[in-house]
Amino acid sequence: MTVGPIALDAMGGDFAPLEVVKGAVRASRDFGIDVVLVGDESVLKAQLAGLGEKESERIRIRHAPEVVLMTDAPSVVIRGKRRSSIRVASNLVKRGEASGVVSAGNTGATMVAARFEFGLAQGVERPAIAQVFPNRKHGTVVLDLGANVDCKVGYLVQFGVMGSIYASIVFQKRRPKVGLLSIGSEDTKGNEFSRNVLRAMRDEPAINFVGNVEGRDVFKGDVDVVVCDGFVGNIVLKITEGVATMVVGMVQDALSSEVLSKAGAALVRPSFRRFKKQMDYAEYGGAILLGVNGVCVICHGGSKARAIRNALKRAHEFAVSGIVQQITEKIEASRTAS
Amino acid sequence: MTVGPIALDAMGGDFAPLEVVKGAVRASRDFGIDVVLVGDESVLKAQLAGLGEKESERIRIRHAPEVVLMTDAPSVVIRGKRRSSIRVASNLVKRGEASGVVSAGNTGATMVAARFEFGLAQGVERPAIAQVFPNRKHGTVVLDLGANVDCKVGYLVQFGVMGSIYASIVFQKRRPKVGLLSIGSEDTKGNEFSRNVLRAMRDEPAINFVGNVEGRDVFKGDVDVVVCDGFVGNIVLKITEGVATMVVGMVQDALSSEVLSKAGAALVRPSFRRFKKQMDYAEYGGAILLGVNGVCVICHGGSKARAIRNALKRAHEFAVSGIVQQITEKIEASRTAS
Repeated sequence: MTVGPIALDAMGGDFAPLEVVKGAVRASRDFGIDVVLVGDESVLKAQLAGLGEKESERIRIRHAPEVVLMTDAPSVVIRGKRRSSIRVASNLVKRGEASGVVSAGNTGATMVAARFEFGLAQGVERPAIAQVFPNRKHGTVVLDLGANVDCKVGYLVQFGVMGSIYASIVFQKRRPKVGLLSIGSEDTKGNEFSRNVLRAMRDEPAINFVGNVEGRDVFKGDVDVVVCDGFVGNIVLKITEGVATMVVGMVQDALSSEVLSKAGAALVRPSFRRFKKQMDYAEYGGAILLGVNGVCVICHGGSKARAIRNALKRAHEFAVSGIVQQITEKIEASRTAS
Repeated sequence: MTVGPIALDAMGGDFAPLEVVKGAVRASRDFGIDVVLVGDESVLKAQLAGLGEKESERIRIRHAPEVVLMTDAPSVVIRGKRRSSIRVASNLVKRGEASGVVSAGNTGATMVAARFEFGLAQGVERPAIAQVFPNRKHGTVVLDLGANVDCKVGYLVQFGVMGSIYASIVFQKRRPKVGLLSIGSEDTKGNEFSRNVLRAMRDEPAINFVGNVEGRDVFKGDVDVVVCDGFVGNIVLKITEGVATMVVGMVQDALSSEVLSKAGAALVRPSFRRFKKQMDYAEYGGAILLGVNGVCVICHGGSKARAIRNALKRAHEFAVSGIVQQITEKIEASRTAS
């Protein structure tokens, strides 16, 4: 599928706009992806000039005078800051001038803007945030990571369908294995809600459902998709970041704690750098908001150029894959069947 | 407080009875703790003999002819295997012949046996499993780790009170900081249930409540106690184990992946061993079942001698501290105040 440029919220993120603009320049150079930088026009022109670039067919600028802050309520994009960079960027997708939107800004505001501008994909009850968690195999998609804190059974079944399509694209796998996050693999394990979800997922023909999985299974990589509600998923995301950060810190302390070890540390540093790269979420190109009627990639607030570059690549791939159409078709088929 | 011996379920765990008996011998030698080994008498005599030991005042044997398997339903200790080692060991505590019980066997069966024999501590609505999670400070107590999958608001408030007492003992801290696990620090963050719990915990004078905390705060160590329901807690526990195992594996791969690194790996190995020790749950002496009318320490099924030794030490400390009396008093005071 030929697709248009990706709209990039150039003012969103802890290192915006400089690192975001840099990421756009790299995505354009490295992958030939066209980008529309959305934000304050004069600022963005200056940033491009500072990087020895200027506006072109490949990197265009769309003016948006307002910026959503990390501290703003998500609803600000509807009520207060209608001309904010994330809202204008999402609107470009709605109008068909862009094939997807990428933002490292306020996650809540990005979700609201995408949902408000794109609407939900046909038949979808709730959108969900999905992300690939790294492991020693190809990784595992976990969703919902926080879009929905109070869920109904049917939402999670749809998350399974959407997560399965997402996994089939990123892992190039025909029938990804989908599991439900619980506290034991037996059908009797879980709380009342999760056991109800389990039964409903068993009845869903659109997914290759393997039943309950445990937290550790996310990191074994034997399952491709793990479904949970957004409250649990957000806790899982932050626990994972917390443990990984602590362990990396402990290893670094250990490597530099003794005179005896210093020579050793210097020798293992290249291996350690590779390891850190494997753990780096920036490599995975951000999270995706599934279930809205367009491609929306959400980056970590701390994203630097490399993370933005990879997120733009991912957004482009999703647009090419027709992920929204695939979701619409499968959800429709699933609703018709039930 | 002078306390009696600790009853040890000598038949429980993946490496029982040998490693369990070894752990008892070490606890006796290293800390002067008296132990009652509960299990098949002839087997245990033979195990002690194999270690160059025999029954004594310090290490006694109490015969129990039945063994609860990891695959048994927890209720088996009430209906089927009333003479199982875990049931007999718990009964010793009830009868005042032991000051606490330690088991690395079937966790569910251990909980049921302890609750059935000891009963709940006065005023406690539900017992909870608590454990110290390692971090770069002294660690953080997390509860409930799986005793209650479906919780009411009041249960979590009591978990806060009990966790606070537990933390005050293990960290020797007067007013431990207690947080509620949620998906953001603001009071508005969370799901409907967690927001209700937040309000109730703010009204509980028996704890030093700091409000919502996030998953990553568990590993920063700025908070001493983190409260959640048993479904979320069990997922958190297994996610933590999963990430730590994966990261340690990745570091090991990285350290041995290149010829260039091999010399370095040899040099850093001592540091790396120290790091692994820091991550090792065995060092923390297991989890504790809080809210029952006696001391019950639950070890990982894969516990070896060192973990058993440390769990016996912890059980002895808890008995000395009068943790059950402290919980009873605080819960009673909290109920009277409200």
